[in-house]
Amino acid sequence: MRNTKLSSLVCASLLFVGATNCINAEDAKQTVDPLIQKALSMGLKAIPNDINELKKLTDPDNVLTAQKVELGKKLYFEPRLSKSGIISCNTCHNLGLGGADGVSAAVGHMWTPNPHHLNSPTVYNSVFFKAQFWDGRSPHLEDQAQGPMQAAPEMASPPSLVEERVNSIPEYIAEFKSVYGNDVKIDFATITATIGAFERTLVTPSRFDDYLHGDASALSDTEKEGLDLFLTKGCIACHNGVALGGTMQAFAVTKPYKFANVGDFKGDANGMVKTPTLRNITETAPYFHNGQIWSLNEAIQEMGSIQLGITISDDEATKIATFFKALEGRKPEITYPMLPASTATTPKPDFK
Amino acid sequence: MRNTKLSSLVCASLLFVGATNCINAEDAKQTVDPLIQKALSMGLKAIPNDINELKKLTDPDNVLTAQKVELGKKLYFEPRLSKSGIISCNTCHNLGLGGADGVSAAVGHMWTPNPHHLNSPTVYNSVFFKAQFWDGRSPHLEDQAQGPMQAAPEMASPPSLVEERVNSIPEYIAEFKSVYGNDVKIDFATITATIGAFERTLVTPSRFDDYLHGDASALSDTEKEGLDLFLTKGCIACHNGVALGGTMQAFAVTKPYKFANVGDFKGDANGMVKTPTLRNITETAPYFHNGQIWSLNEAIQEMGSIQLGITISDDEATKIATFFKALEGRKPEITYPMLPASTATTPKPDFK
Repeated sequence: MRNTKLSSLVCASLLFVGATNCINAEDAKQTVDPLIQKALSMGLKAIPNDINELKKLTDPDNVLTAQKVELGKKLYFEPRLSKSGIISCNTCHNLGLGGADGVSAAVGHMWTPNPHHLNSPTVYNSVFFKAQFWDGRSPHLEDQAQGPMQAAPEMASPPSLVEERVNSIPEYIAEFKSVYGNDVKIDFATITATIGAFERTLVTPSRFDDYLHGDASALSDTEKEGLDLFLTKGCIACHNGVALGGTMQAFAVTKPYKFANVGDFKGDANGMVKTPTLRNITETAPYFHNGQIWSLNEAIQEMGSIQLGITISDDEATKIATFFKALEGRKPEITYPMLPASTATTPKPDFK
Repeated sequence: MRNTKLSSLVCASLLFVGATNCINAEDAKQTVDPLIQKALSMGLKAIPNDINELKKLTDPDNVLTAQKVELGKKLYFEPRLSKSGIISCNTCHNLGLGGADGVSAAVGHMWTPNPHHLNSPTVYNSVFFKAQFWDGRSPHLEDQAQGPMQAAPEMASPPSLVEERVNSIPEYIAEFKSVYGNDVKIDFATITATIGAFERTLVTPSRFDDYLHGDASALSDTEKEGLDLFLTKGCIACHNGVALGGTMQAFAVTKPYKFANVGDFKGDANGMVKTPTLRNITETAPYFHNGQIWSLNEAIQEMGSIQLGITISDDEATKIATFFKALEGRKPEITYPMLPASTATTPKPDFK
């Protein structure tokens, strides 16, 4: 924390002239380490420390309440939203495993592997993405949550089944009324929107954010070398913004991807692919849309090759991967939800 | 809390003569409601309020430490202990669903239904069982945990795979050393014993325990009627002790079970079957070893018929089921564990 003294001084002087917090002081601190300025100027952004700034990114319509988030959490962990009754959102986006599942292709209803051999992306920090799903077909989390729940190889639930299950459980009805008012219609859209609300809170500030906020000591020298390489080599072209990813980008620009033959995924109508976030990337192997690369170094080198047309050396890849350690985030503490019991009218698990 | 005044008086007088707590005062309170005495004299037991008394039941060898329980919790939620990497203990013994999975027969590796069509029993309060598994073949939780992990239709992991996965993750090695000392051998027995340690803490005191401890107002009048029927009709013969179950008993004594044809389970060598606990039974449908009965009333009536040779009327069954509501326990708060990342040497998920 080399800059503590300086930042305190700046902060104190700002307070003297009427500033209400030290955000400007942090800007001042950033001038100390030119690499921070370089990272910011090239398009990297910190997760805001200031709660109001964070809310502008995660809750722009100001819809989140503690009660809604808590209900959304229950539904996120609720296996009865799946046809079988044993698959929840958390099955493939496991909050204990970096928000993913650690397997190449997601496995769903009746152990069906994803038919396009697609890998489950992390839910952490997905609120910062400009688009959801690998082909970016969904604009936000509330909409995204409707996909896997219905998809036959995932949770395989028709919306009517989801609605019947939830509406058969008085505790859920009471909670929805408490969150949305007595006139709430507990339909598929409301249920999935409530899950989206919970997912909006799954934000993981890291040492890298501390660094961008001005704590030059938050990164080791090797991590800084890795960051500099990350910027200089051009990784930043796609992995930018708060999410270090989350936008649609051309894929395999300079060369075919070496595992392009696994699955039939070709991106959106224009061949664009959603760039995965690099936050918590050390926790979410395997990599790429079809989960074919397990080593972070190999993933970095393959990206250099197919996206940037450059060779990234083993040493450079190791340094970039070391920088990625600084993106391991502080996860929100999740109290495991106790789910209300089924009733006589709850539709039974369906294994067809 | 009708007896508060009386019990306070008794408690105060006992303190005066040197008693260190009010347990004896609770005995005194129990005399107020004859049904409490009846329940106790016929074999029902409360989960002790006194921590030392509780430890005698849940941790007789005094092996539990907070750190071991915390590590055990991680392993309980750890899907990488399964061959596929996506099934954990919590998959079938879901702590959010009354400690079970809510389906008739457990589903495991590659979506294999349990070959004997056996239903997953709850893990809550299983520490109080005299035997584990439906056929009682395991003496305690540390031993029990070795079964499903290896069983081909469950987690399907050879012990060597479990050991390799855990030993490939430095954070786990550090935690095992911290719990057991630097010389610890992180083998299958130690891993499963650590899970057992966590499971020993999954105890859920209920309103019924408050009642047995002397709070006569903890049960409603209908619940008391149900309890009295439960005692008088003979349910208590098998569903007794702290667990209201958990011992080996003859099954289908007076008549064949009406779904005896589903699955091939015949009990242990002597045809004995482990009596399920009734704690949290309202949360763990479907019922019976093969999960064929979804309604608690129907389960109660079927038990009367095949075990006791009596007819339990609809009204009586409803009252007994109402009593079971008082067995819904207060669950321990579980902070969802963040699991350490795999490494290059971690054996990959295996979907064969």
